[in-house]
Amino acid sequence: MENFDLHILGCGSALPTMRHNPTSQALQLRGKTYLIDCGEGTQLSIRRAQLQFSKIHSIYISHLHGDHCFGLPGLLSTMSLLGRASTLPIYGPWGIKDYVQEIKQRFLADSSFEIEVRECDCRIHTLVHEDSSLRVFSIPLSHRIPTIGYLFEEKCAELHLDKPSVDFYKVPIAYYQHLLAGEDYVTEEGEQIPNHRLTKKGRSPRRYAFCSDTKYHPPIIDCVRGVDLLYHEATFGDELSERAEATAHSTSRQAAVIAREAEVKRLLIGHYSSRYESYDTLLQQAREEFPNTEAAFEGLCIKI
Amino acid sequence: MENFDLHILGCGSALPTMRHNPTSQALQLRGKTYLIDCGEGTQLSIRRAQLQFSKIHSIYISHLHGDHCFGLPGLLSTMSLLGRASTLPIYGPWGIKDYVQEIKQRFLADSSFEIEVRECDCRIHTLVHEDSSLRVFSIPLSHRIPTIGYLFEEKCAELHLDKPSVDFYKVPIAYYQHLLAGEDYVTEEGEQIPNHRLTKKGRSPRRYAFCSDTKYHPPIIDCVRGVDLLYHEATFGDELSERAEATAHSTSRQAAVIAREAEVKRLLIGHYSSRYESYDTLLQQAREEFPNTEAAFEGLCIKI
Repeated sequence: MENFDLHILGCGSALPTMRHNPTSQALQLRGKTYLIDCGEGTQLSIRRAQLQFSKIHSIYISHLHGDHCFGLPGLLSTMSLLGRASTLPIYGPWGIKDYVQEIKQRFLADSSFEIEVRECDCRIHTLVHEDSSLRVFSIPLSHRIPTIGYLFEEKCAELHLDKPSVDFYKVPIAYYQHLLAGEDYVTEEGEQIPNHRLTKKGRSPRRYAFCSDTKYHPPIIDCVRGVDLLYHEATFGDELSERAEATAHSTSRQAAVIAREAEVKRLLIGHYSSRYESYDTLLQQAREEFPNTEAAFEGLCIKI
Repeated sequence: MENFDLHILGCGSALPTMRHNPTSQALQLRGKTYLIDCGEGTQLSIRRAQLQFSKIHSIYISHLHGDHCFGLPGLLSTMSLLGRASTLPIYGPWGIKDYVQEIKQRFLADSSFEIEVRECDCRIHTLVHEDSSLRVFSIPLSHRIPTIGYLFEEKCAELHLDKPSVDFYKVPIAYYQHLLAGEDYVTEEGEQIPNHRLTKKGRSPRRYAFCSDTKYHPPIIDCVRGVDLLYHEATFGDELSERAEATAHSTSRQAAVIAREAEVKRLLIGHYSSRYESYDTLLQQAREEFPNTEAAFEGLCIKI
């Protein structure tokens, strides 16, 4: 099974600290890197994590608060300096088109590559991207400005050949693709062999959901049900639940309630308020609701 | 004598490396911090250098290439989050007004403070800022886009009281300000005491000149003559002098020739191309022309 790795490049919030970078994550699958959010300094974190700029396949911006997008001008400039040739898709909420257009006009006049910006409707859970490796779905979040979460679902073959059975019935190689597409096979003797006797079901696709920034928002539950890994923002602890409400952020306990109700396999929390010297308390409060919770930190790489 | 300190926050060039941050410097005098250029990540370097955001008095941008200004949106946002109240002057070349305006519109709608952007004429050496502590002059540089260097000159009292002499002639305290303004004194007996017998000349003001980015540009010499410290970009070594010419940058040797011809006291080089693993060779080539050369690095603090 191919690696499906999540690199945490930054998991702090708006105010800069020496402990955390602003939000950015890199998801790797089959040689492609999918970049999620791009806070200031992301290009340096990419270097630090020994990821390659040239492997960045597409970028997913959750919302246009600075701690999630101020690294974009620098990253795009560097990609151009390095001579990137392939078109770069950037997904994001309403307004991302104008923002990228401003960056292009001011700083990327001689860019080596094209950018294709795709604005997503922040109100619906829908497919926004599909390539040979995965599908990406939007997740409506509830923050102070239009904000999208993203669900990444790897593509798996739905059917595999049952090789002994295929050999037994002497299916010609040229017909394999029909079997994988679900068709039955008719032998030279005219016997119809149903598809399920010639194939086996593939494993279910791995899924990663990214939800930041958002207040406690139960509609998220249905969008992320059963995912292998859920990243959910956890800006505050219990003692600041009112501040979480007022600023449209979540407490770590609320993140864990979403994880529990959605029956996800693992929860990863992050986007810690700069007031916390350590995430220990946030982690502890989350684990009271959902034991299989981990805390994000810069340099963490999770195998999904 | 008050400290007049230069903190190097970043001295790399356009491509990010693990060794250097993009350009930024903080000049400190009498409790005020004057920020020069603001590459991506500057707000973090300010934290790392244990400087206070609230002490930043004004910002001086040399030119609108990303490695000199991509840190501005993040820094301004953080200042607002921290509740800055006082107006922030930002100086820069043509275009800086539009750039800051875009940042304000998109990310600083509820800013806690006002920004006063002042575009400078990049073609003339002239006074651009004056406050109670210093004067700042523009230095025309020659780069691929409009670019300004800055000369910072501390303000010193031109005259000090010669206390024994002042006491001898029984000058009333109320008259001291007239002496410091250069006036003579007439005693009660009608004797006219010339000013030079009652005062002493103050020391000459310390001066720091920042010149980045620029190709080898001899008109700089007259603007920086005799300064206590000259920072001059030194992107390339001798072997890449043609590339320096083509990209409108300088070799370290050219920086040193400017320093020698201008008879400055000390030279500081920086803005190293990312291709150099170390600045040793650049430093050595500069010292062949001007021995009193030092190489900038992140965290360096120079007392001027």
